[in-house]
Order: sequence, then C-alpha cells, then structure tokens
Amino acid sequence: MMSTTIQSHGVQYGVRQAEIRHVEALIDLLADDPIGSTRETTNPDARTIYEEAFTRIDKDPAHLLVVITVDDDTVIGSMQLTFIPGLSRMGATRMQIEAVRVHEDHRSKGIGSAMIRWACDEGARRGAFLAQLTSDRTRTEAHSFYERLGFVDSHLGFKKSLS
Amino acid sequence: MMSTTIQSHGVQYGVRQAEIRHVEALIDLLADDPIGSTRETTNPDARTIYEEAFTRIDKDPAHLLVVITVDDDTVIGSMQLTFIPGLSRMGATRMQIEAVRVHEDHRSKGIGSAMIRWACDEGARRGAFLAQLTSDRTRTEAHSFYERLGFVDSHLGFKKSLS
Repeated sequence: MMSTTIQSHGVQYGVRQAEIRHVEALIDLLADDPIGSTRETTNPDARTIYEEAFTRIDKDPAHLLVVITVDDDTVIGSMQLTFIPGLSRMGATRMQIEAVRVHEDHRSKGIGSAMIRWACDEGARRGAFLAQLTSDRTRTEAHSFYERLGFVDSHLGFKKSLS
Repeated sequence: MMSTTIQSHGVQYGVRQAEIRHVEALIDLLADDPIGSTRETTNPDARTIYEEAFTRIDKDPAHLLVVITVDDDTVIGSMQLTFIPGLSRMGATRMQIEAVRVHEDHRSKGIGSAMIRWACDEGARRGAFLAQLTSDRTRTEAHSFYERLGFVDSHLGFKKSLS
C-alpha cells in the first residue's frame, strides 16, 4: 500500500493509496466543486454505489486513487492516476490524471502543485513517458496552474456522452 | 475474444480484439502517420519490445486493443479503448480512446467513423457514461471528424513529458 509524504509551505501532508474508509471524505471533496456539486450525492443511501466504484478502481493496479491527508488522517485532497500501456512510441505507457481535487479550506497553499509534482515523479518511477489530463475550458485558473507545472495544452480534449 | 463486424459504404470490416500475431501490422499502422513516423521503428529487432507492450495491454481487461480487418484478416485500422472507473458522477466509468489509426489506402471510405461509432456503442454496452479522447492541435481534419461524430471539444488536453 503506497504511502509517503509531501511538503508545501513548510507543512507536511500524507500521500497514500485510498482505502475504503476514505470513500465518504472523497465524495465530500468531489461534491465541493462548482461542476461536481451538480453531479454527486452525499446522501448516505448512495454510499454503497460509491463503495462499489471504489472497489472497481482498487482491484486493478492500472489505477491508483490517491488521498492527500493532514496529520490526523483528514482527507484534504485526492487524484486518480491511470497507467495506460500502449504500442505507440515503442510500447510506451502514459499516465492519465483524473479527478484532481483540493478541499477549499486548503487551497492557495501550494498543495495542488505538490500533488501534481509528486504524481509526475511517481509516473516516471512507474515507467510512464508522459502525463496527460484534460481540463474543462471553463476552469481557466486550472489552465495556468497546469502550465506553471510544465504541462502544455498541445491537444484538444473531446468528450461525448454515451448515455 | 471480442469479434464482430461493421459496415461502411457497403463493405464489411472485421472488428476484433488484437492478438499478438497482429503486432507487426499494428506497428506498420502506427509508423504510417506524420507524427508517428518519427516515433516508431519497424526494425524487426524491436519486435520484442512491441510484443511486451502488447502483453501489458492484453493482460488487463481495462484495456481493449482493437484491430479493423478486411476479408483476408489484413489489418487496416486500430484503436485502443481504456475503461477508467472513477468515484465522481456517482461512481461512473469513462472510456478513453487512444491510438486511432486507419491505413492511408483505406481512408475517406467512412471506416474511421464506423470504428468510432462502434467504439461508443461498445463503451455504452460496457457501462461507460462518457467517451473521451484528445487530438493534437495540428490534426485539424481529425477535429472536424470527431465533431461530426458528436464529440465536443469542451476541454483542453494538457501533456507533460516525464522523461
């Protein structure tokens, strides 16, 4: 079970593979977002649905769901990394980053940057040649954030609903 | 082993899960591209590297590498689908599309559209709520292609080299 720490502005944060006991905190994080608030439910009756989703993520080592914690194991951030092996570029693996969230009380403290830097280091350790993510066109602050971290918006991100 | 057919312009094509015997043809397809030609090697000595990559893709059901064939099992197209389970949107799974290729001799015959339509149907059958892909900003023809198929470039696609 992956577990380490990162530093930002002199504060130490835990970075660890999410466990099922973190699911409630993860739902709260996802719902605490201008886009996410319309998509999630924090109703306890829905917990089973989220726990089943957690199990789908957790059982396949291609996916790494990460929680960022402060000293008392409180979850203040999360992200999900998926390692996608491919044939192209001589059989290279890429790392897809999804669901990056930092609790609003903990923003503007450099935690997001430290998380993404850690993710890129972890991706390189696991042999990925590239990190990739898409960001909604409306999230303009996120775009400068990723650019400061060395990401280039070289691509357009296309989505199509299947439902 | 998934295997079916699609039709385009009155011609029938095979759509099947790639097998290791398809690797040589897949490398040729990847190399036959303005961007891909700088990244791949068709040198037989590199075959083992690609076969190892094929095995990484093939062993995990999260990834589905698809070949498109004509009647004599000749590979004329390919794409890779990755199913990414998540917690957000009440535990929804998204389908990532990578490495879409059609051999140049078989373009402009509607095969690409038929492939992507099939991929979206297959994604829905497997429970994905969303199909997503990124397309290099220089591939302007690809952008109108995906828009005609109902994709929306609602996101920016950020990439960062990890090497």
